[in-house]
Amino acid sequence: MFPPVSLDVGTAIKTLVLTLDLLGTFVFALSGAVAGVRRRLDLFGVLVLSFVAANSGGIVRDVLIGATPPAAIRDWRYLAASLLAGAMIFFWYPNIRRLRSPVLVFDAAGLALFCVAGAQKALVFGLSPVMAALLGMLTGVGGGVARDVLLSEIPAVLRSDIYAVAALAGAAVLVSGDALGLPGTVSACAGAALCFGLRLAAIKLDWHQPVARAARQAPDDAAAAARRDGR
Amino acid sequence: MFPPVSLDVGTAIKTLVLTLDLLGTFVFALSGAVAGVRRRLDLFGVLVLSFVAANSGGIVRDVLIGATPPAAIRDWRYLAASLLAGAMIFFWYPNIRRLRSPVLVFDAAGLALFCVAGAQKALVFGLSPVMAALLGMLTGVGGGVARDVLLSEIPAVLRSDIYAVAALAGAAVLVSGDALGLPGTVSACAGAALCFGLRLAAIKLDWHQPVARAARQAPDDAAAAARRDGR
Amino acid sequence: MFPPVSLDVGTAIKTLVLTLDLLGTFVFALSGAVAGVRRRLDLFGVLVLSFVAANSGGIVRDVLIGATPPAAIRDWRYLAASLLAGAMIFFWYPNIRRLRSPVLVFDAAGLALFCVAGAQKALVFGLSPVMAALLGMLTGVGGGVARDVLLSEIPAVLRSDIYAVAALAGAAVLVSGDALGLPGTVSACAGAALCFGLRLAAIKLDWHQPVARAARQAPDDAAAAARRDGR
Repeated sequence: MFPPVSLDVGTAIKTLVLTLDLLGTFVFALSGAVAGVRRRLDLFGVLVLSFVAANSGGIVRDVLIGATPPAAIRDWRYLAASLLAGAMIFFWYPNIRRLRSPVLVFDAAGLALFCVAGAQKALVFGLSPVMAALLGMLTGVGGGVARDVLLSEIPAVLRSDIYAVAALAGAAVLVSGDALGLPGTVSACAGAALCFGLRLAAIKLDWHQPVARAARQAPDDAAAAARRDGR
Repeated sequence: MFPPVSLDVGTAIKTLVLTLDLLGTFVFALSGAVAGVRRRLDLFGVLVLSFVAANSGGIVRDVLIGATPPAAIRDWRYLAASLLAGAMIFFWYPNIRRLRSPVLVFDAAGLALFCVAGAQKALVFGLSPVMAALLGMLTGVGGGVARDVLLSEIPAVLRSDIYAVAALAGAAVLVSGDALGLPGTVSACAGAALCFGLRLAAIKLDWHQPVARAARQAPDDAAAAARRDGR
Repeated sequence: MFPPVSLDVGTAIKTLVLTLDLLGTFVFALSGAVAGVRRRLDLFGVLVLSFVAANSGGIVRDVLIGATPPAAIRDWRYLAASLLAGAMIFFWYPNIRRLRSPVLVFDAAGLALFCVAGAQKALVFGLSPVMAALLGMLTGVGGGVARDVLLSEIPAVLRSDIYAVAALAGAAVLVSGDALGLPGTVSACAGAALCFGLRLAAIKLDWHQPVARAARQAPDDAAAAARRDGR
């Protein structure tokens, strides 16, 4: 009945999502660049790590669902946001280092947005709800995994606190809302809020996930096994 | 002439293949979970490693041949088998550890099945026989490679005994049978049996592949080179 | 007017490009095999590293632009060139080791060719100029990155001298020529020549890229950070 208005709302939401998406990209790129500077990579290496940390999750998701070329490669703004973050860290690292706590908050915001947006896109491409939720989680954590693999480390997300779980929870809310027929914006906001809240609470309260009993009870045994495995 | 009967046979074979496929997924997921528990990953990390070890080979194959979204992401049963194996290891690791020898046998069965099924699928998607055999091998060994890369290790398959070679032999039998016009089930069974037999013999008889003469003759030199390379 | 002649020219260029492409594959495969022999991988591992180092860049590019199955998997000659290089290194490593300087020159030639060919293919698949240049660079450096990740090392290209930058410059020349409407062969030759020249100059003159001020000024701090990060 009022298409101009609904168009305006749609445009406003699209602009909001794009803004948040680029902000998430920027923040994740910061994390990649900081890791690169600490390992003393050169300028090129730092920029590559910025791009990889910010965009790998989305790229892998798009390749898996058959949406090639991936958005991060089709739209120059993701590249620009990544390179800007990488250059800022490279040249101003000592000053930015002090901002650790704001960076963690931004990172939680990026994670919240990426998990919701990733699950939404997977649903659009016809994946089942469970897989869409997992791909949403992958969108959120994939960049950090790729960053750590390139730096020859065990991905932090595999052994740290409530990070991937928060992303999965947020994606699950979006997918459930879709299954229940709720409007997309409502479930997207609820999912992002849940992920963001869980992540902040985990940081604040120092929540951790359980480690297998065997490893806990017999640290020497586990260490010996690790040594025997070659490290 | 007897479509109901042939349908029954076809259904029985399909059920058999799916059962074996899921069993292979389960066994490979066990190997990923054990590696994760030894490195003291948390529950989420162990489940991720289970899924990665069981499904990466098939996912990479499907992405390469353009069969997106990959079967492991479209069919929830692969996910369920992976998570079940991961959870079992996480909670009962000390008891399962005693079963090392059965696990090796299951692992050989999983490898035999995956290499044959992977080569078959690549043929269906129109790849040349040589490449189909290699993709069959990749289906078998890819999960283990991804598991080791995530754990920041040199993939075991690159430097251990007759593992990838057994997978390649099994896949080659299937591809040759297809080129000779044999019925698919015959060459599939022959290929899987060859891979399984080779793998068991390699474990039993402790077969190894040759290492380059240079590295054998001059271990100090090779070690020095490795050190010079940065590790 | 003279289609036979233009056909002959086209065929000659195609043959030239294919020859250069296979030569580049061969040289990159040499680098992968040498890395594998130094780490004492077995024959299979060395052959895998040869193939990975020579073809990963192109495979990832083809997957990203949706050109599946990738050329390296569709055309057996890339596989043959890779395996030949791997076998030569495996069996004759002590003799080939002396050829370090020729290998570096061939490697520069391979990089020059791959970056130009990769950018060209990305343009054909409709990517924007900036992304085509980046995918050209990825085609050139991707194989080396995959090789180092499999060997559990930080990719050399992330922290060494003018390597990726040379590839990016070559790809940028090709893309700019395309945007300006120059004939493809001219900009391809100019791009390849620039990349080749930059790379040789970097080797000859020992050029390096800058490292972030923070890491330079406070090596102890950076090392401590690296140690704290778990290495």
